[in-house]
Amino acid sequence: MTPSISRIGVLTAGGDCPGLNAVIRAVTKTAMFQHNLEVYGIEDGFLGLVENRMRPLSREDVSNILTRGGTILGSSNKCNPQRYAVGEEEDGKPIFEDMTNLCLRHLKRRGIEALIVIGGDGSMSGAANFVRRGVNCIGVPKTIDNDLVGTDVTFGFATARYIATEALDRIHTTAASHHRAMVVEVMGRNAGWIALESGVASGADILLLPEIPFDIDKVCDVVKERSRYGKAFTIIAISEGAKPIGGEQVVHHVDPTSPDPIRLGGVGERVARQIEEKTGIDSRCTVLGHVQRGGTPVPEDRVLATLFGYHALELLANGAQNRLVVMQGRTIADTEITRAENKQRTIAPDHLLIAAARAVGTSFGD
Amino acid sequence: MTPSISRIGVLTAGGDCPGLNAVIRAVTKTAMFQHNLEVYGIEDGFLGLVENRMRPLSREDVSNILTRGGTILGSSNKCNPQRYAVGEEEDGKPIFEDMTNLCLRHLKRRGIEALIVIGGDGSMSGAANFVRRGVNCIGVPKTIDNDLVGTDVTFGFATARYIATEALDRIHTTAASHHRAMVVEVMGRNAGWIALESGVASGADILLLPEIPFDIDKVCDVVKERSRYGKAFTIIAISEGAKPIGGEQVVHHVDPTSPDPIRLGGVGERVARQIEEKTGIDSRCTVLGHVQRGGTPVPEDRVLATLFGYHALELLANGAQNRLVVMQGRTIADTEITRAENKQRTIAPDHLLIAAARAVGTSFGD
Amino acid sequence: MTPSISRIGVLTAGGDCPGLNAVIRAVTKTAMFQHNLEVYGIEDGFLGLVENRMRPLSREDVSNILTRGGTILGSSNKCNPQRYAVGEEEDGKPIFEDMTNLCLRHLKRRGIEALIVIGGDGSMSGAANFVRRGVNCIGVPKTIDNDLVGTDVTFGFATARYIATEALDRIHTTAASHHRAMVVEVMGRNAGWIALESGVASGADILLLPEIPFDIDKVCDVVKERSRYGKAFTIIAISEGAKPIGGEQVVHHVDPTSPDPIRLGGVGERVARQIEEKTGIDSRCTVLGHVQRGGTPVPEDRVLATLFGYHALELLANGAQNRLVVMQGRTIADTEITRAENKQRTIAPDHLLIAAARAVGTSFGD
Amino acid sequence: MTPSISRIGVLTAGGDCPGLNAVIRAVTKTAMFQHNLEVYGIEDGFLGLVENRMRPLSREDVSNILTRGGTILGSSNKCNPQRYAVGEEEDGKPIFEDMTNLCLRHLKRRGIEALIVIGGDGSMSGAANFVRRGVNCIGVPKTIDNDLVGTDVTFGFATARYIATEALDRIHTTAASHHRAMVVEVMGRNAGWIALESGVASGADILLLPEIPFDIDKVCDVVKERSRYGKAFTIIAISEGAKPIGGEQVVHHVDPTSPDPIRLGGVGERVARQIEEKTGIDSRCTVLGHVQRGGTPVPEDRVLATLFGYHALELLANGAQNRLVVMQGRTIADTEITRAENKQRTIAPDHLLIAAARAVGTSFGD
Repeated sequence: MTPSISRIGVLTAGGDCPGLNAVIRAVTKTAMFQHNLEVYGIEDGFLGLVENRMRPLSREDVSNILTRGGTILGSSNKCNPQRYAVGEEEDGKPIFEDMTNLCLRHLKRRGIEALIVIGGDGSMSGAANFVRRGVNCIGVPKTIDNDLVGTDVTFGFATARYIATEALDRIHTTAASHHRAMVVEVMGRNAGWIALESGVASGADILLLPEIPFDIDKVCDVVKERSRYGKAFTIIAISEGAKPIGGEQVVHHVDPTSPDPIRLGGVGERVARQIEEKTGIDSRCTVLGHVQRGGTPVPEDRVLATLFGYHALELLANGAQNRLVVMQGRTIADTEITRAENKQRTIAPDHLLIAAARAVGTSFGD
Repeated sequence: MTPSISRIGVLTAGGDCPGLNAVIRAVTKTAMFQHNLEVYGIEDGFLGLVENRMRPLSREDVSNILTRGGTILGSSNKCNPQRYAVGEEEDGKPIFEDMTNLCLRHLKRRGIEALIVIGGDGSMSGAANFVRRGVNCIGVPKTIDNDLVGTDVTFGFATARYIATEALDRIHTTAASHHRAMVVEVMGRNAGWIALESGVASGADILLLPEIPFDIDKVCDVVKERSRYGKAFTIIAISEGAKPIGGEQVVHHVDPTSPDPIRLGGVGERVARQIEEKTGIDSRCTVLGHVQRGGTPVPEDRVLATLFGYHALELLANGAQNRLVVMQGRTIADTEITRAENKQRTIAPDHLLIAAARAVGTSFGD
Repeated sequence: MTPSISRIGVLTAGGDCPGLNAVIRAVTKTAMFQHNLEVYGIEDGFLGLVENRMRPLSREDVSNILTRGGTILGSSNKCNPQRYAVGEEEDGKPIFEDMTNLCLRHLKRRGIEALIVIGGDGSMSGAANFVRRGVNCIGVPKTIDNDLVGTDVTFGFATARYIATEALDRIHTTAASHHRAMVVEVMGRNAGWIALESGVASGADILLLPEIPFDIDKVCDVVKERSRYGKAFTIIAISEGAKPIGGEQVVHHVDPTSPDPIRLGGVGERVARQIEEKTGIDSRCTVLGHVQRGGTPVPEDRVLATLFGYHALELLANGAQNRLVVMQGRTIADTEITRAENKQRTIAPDHLLIAAARAVGTSFGD
Repeated sequence: MTPSISRIGVLTAGGDCPGLNAVIRAVTKTAMFQHNLEVYGIEDGFLGLVENRMRPLSREDVSNILTRGGTILGSSNKCNPQRYAVGEEEDGKPIFEDMTNLCLRHLKRRGIEALIVIGGDGSMSGAANFVRRGVNCIGVPKTIDNDLVGTDVTFGFATARYIATEALDRIHTTAASHHRAMVVEVMGRNAGWIALESGVASGADILLLPEIPFDIDKVCDVVKERSRYGKAFTIIAISEGAKPIGGEQVVHHVDPTSPDPIRLGGVGERVARQIEEKTGIDSRCTVLGHVQRGGTPVPEDRVLATLFGYHALELLANGAQNRLVVMQGRTIADTEITRAENKQRTIAPDHLLIAAARAVGTSFGD
């Protein structure tokens, strides 16, 4: 252990993700029991750094949180201390200031000598800012989308996959009873991991991923073909980031011309409508939404989060600087924290699971 | 047992509902084991009656279906034999004909002497048509919405409540970690049963039901009040049929002016947007959709469906005519099948559970 | 509201039961929000009364506990203030004393004017003791066994049924793949409610209940018959209190003659062995045990527990004395608290659900 | 594809394991869609080979089985064609004969040119017998215990871990409310994988594994220590194969001296009793049993099983001989089928997850 470190901070940033509390618990308990380190919990991600909201975490604080969804520390989605909105111009535009120095002073005054940043690619950019200013940061990758560069898997993904699969299993029934095409839109941003794995797990007939632009006519051909074959239903799992060949991603947007503008649907809704129009077969879309990122983590994510939190502390205790905890194969390892900055790991079109899915008869609409 | 009956038909009509297969199984097994009756399964609801698609059900057919969602017989949503589309006018308008006589001939030729109709209020109207033409029909009420007149509870409802509660539990986490208002729109048509019970079960902060028109400003007051009190999150469970005081129900509709018209959101989406605009607090809506009506039924629904199927057969075997199986309190009973025709059982505003919810601090936005 | 009451106590006694925290929450919130009453939580059931361990419950204390299993107040299984072990005789026999007066003094000194006792039939006897000494007690019935006299249903039961059904569903698979008889022993003491409802819900082939003594030869006949019919597996759901005709209940006991005495199995284990011996068909027993009484309650139990807690407070606030909250049909009501004292509600052999189960081919081994 | 192969057989042998049907489906669909191979399903494992029970699998046969537990082909636990009981000696001892030649004739007559054997280490020995007789066998490793040599993970394990974790989560509640030590005995034979991962996932206080013999006094010290610290409950996850230092494994055995011999408990029961005796703290044991190996597989197992089935077919189609499909890190690979013969992969005492568990305060009783 580096003798100089006696107090560290931990924060959770970005969107919600099952397993955050499991990391906080593993970090705090390992610090306390193994290394006699004090852990400060920083509230609401980087926002708590700016606003100086942090508190020491006790054994009681991290008791009984392993199975709980969310984060006991709170999070904030968009806080970037380098570009922090401090007010508005006369014309309503926000005025931004760099609050990094303020954050550094808060840390110094508290005696916090290193940070554990639990977050996604955006948060790792936030961490990189502090790394450049001399704060030792250990990153713990977190995203349900499983799209972080450098790690084979992130916690939260298994839970999202579980929930998406359960929903697809349920929807299967409705489609089969009513001779329908059912489109289920799942999360994943620009990566199709959730759609691919939950689609394979539930035996979806068509998988539409951001990595494989689809041809709506080929999608409709599959729907019609199944209907001819006697199975008058089709299950389509679609990533929120999927897009047609040559087309744009459908962004969830607001119709400005409507007197009472309410949000329009996304790509799943659009595909369902196109299928209905082109095949005449009744089609419905379900957008899973935030249920995918909340609630108690599945065991796999709890184990992974515990390993990540433990390893983060071990790195710190062994004097490591600015590392990102990762999983490579079945082994825990670490890489440069800056490596994950604003990059995404998408699925290679020849990925083994895509080949297996094609082999069992799944269409990718291409 | 009425000696003349030796063969009956069973059909499932209307939307999907967990427990349909459990009824089919109970009907078929009771007929076979207790009354030596033959059961014909009619495919795709009333459509199979018109198209003469029906088959004898064997012990094997109903083996292992108790826990399965959907219906092994298939269903059809909108088929009304009295108004059956047989073609189109030159101007594209459908031409309707009354196919009741055709259905009667199909039944007669097969020797089917009575029908068990598993369906909602619409399907009971369909049954009433055959009742008026002399076919003995026993109705089994089916709807996840729990809104059928004459029965205190319908199977399918407990499963929908379970799924909605589970989703609300998961969403709770996300809201709490991110200081958000989370709106969860559940099914129920014009009745608030699913929203009320899942809302109470999950401890939702605001419940918006069709039976209690809401004042969006009061909704926003609760959101702001909670934020002031230190709980910067609010969970709102809303029925798809909820509406503002003096306002109209928001129908899921398509914007015709958009070049690429995709379906617009419903009342949940609108409420989320209004909260965000009026309070400045980040708000999100999740529409649960079809996951609520598919998949394996919870035990309560399997038991209820088994009782309903059993009682339907007992009624038939005892010579009853045109009854609807119902649950009154904890007792199974029956009523006139025509009683359920196109009526709905909504929640009285002074319902015990509403009083209890108010007592523990839940707002109804009124 | 009776003006004189301003402070009440609440305790949970007896075995664990999903929904206890939901009652505590409803009691506390209704007291606080509706009646301006202060609520003291008494720790570890009647033991906390004797040992003067109680604390005021705040809004924070009951926040986020609705979905949590167990009880935030703790419980104690066997504490009876009238017969409280205060030491041991020289020969090791315990010395009992009546601590009722001590408890009364503790309550008086705290200004607690009424008690809400959440418990089973044993705990209602404990409450009756205080009732006789002039303390107003409102009872809330609690047991997973569903066997309390006066109420049609108790919270906790639906969760136990859910867990037992889920286990039976899983076990079904194993039996079917391996041509086995699988015996699953569930809780319920002298009442067969859990076995009956989970058995019907999962389609168990044989149900053995305390209320219907079984003939092991008839049980074996069913197993052999199914094997002849081509289904070489049988699922048997058995209550822990089931017993053979003319036989005794098998008590889980310790063999005193064994050098390393470990607990012997119960009735489920015995039935499995007898089937194997008499039919030659491989048989296994699984004893579900404590998983049935822990963990998050299913929505039905949360709703019921909320209603019970709310009604208990309403009774108190309206000046009622010594009532037991009950559910009659679908209506909440109340009865004399002494009515539930040490009695049990078992299943009538001609119960509707038994008739329905027989009709679909289930054997009761009789 | 090797041109000579046009028909293959598939069988499932050994204990039940979630994911078997997913493999059968992937094998059959890949064979059909990709390689124009015919697949014969052999019933009840090696027994069907001896008894010549096998049937061609159609697309319909493998439809809708992906999510189903068990195996549509049936299995048999102990059938070894090399040592097949054909009758009994006069003294009741079984007479064994080698039926391998018979099996070979059955295969030859059917034109089955290769076998896919889905099984554990015992079944791979069975396959090796056929390999030595010139039958090309591709092995697919299957065990919930995760103890097969050569692969980092087996399907079925994730489901067992899920069920064990869910049970531990539920039991946690009961223990916490009642100040008890709760022992939960899980499966795993001589390997502690299920106990280790479910124990870490649920935050069990003590983990007792076959790989780390325990000292019952140290176990009791932890129980007492927790009690002193104010947490009067302890959760102990124990493998069925765990054993005390210097002691023997406790085998589930029958007491021969009892007039009505019923099975005695195993190591979990013994540990619970010892804790109660040595600490005076109320202790209970729950033996999870067969629920761990049945029911629908979790998504992870469905994906893994699909990959395994797909890869097995790819190997066959590419002319590979006698390979075992394995997972190394996150990559699918294959090894000699004989490598897995009767060996087990246990946990190294310095395994990362053991280190992490110790770091967060878990005791291994050593």
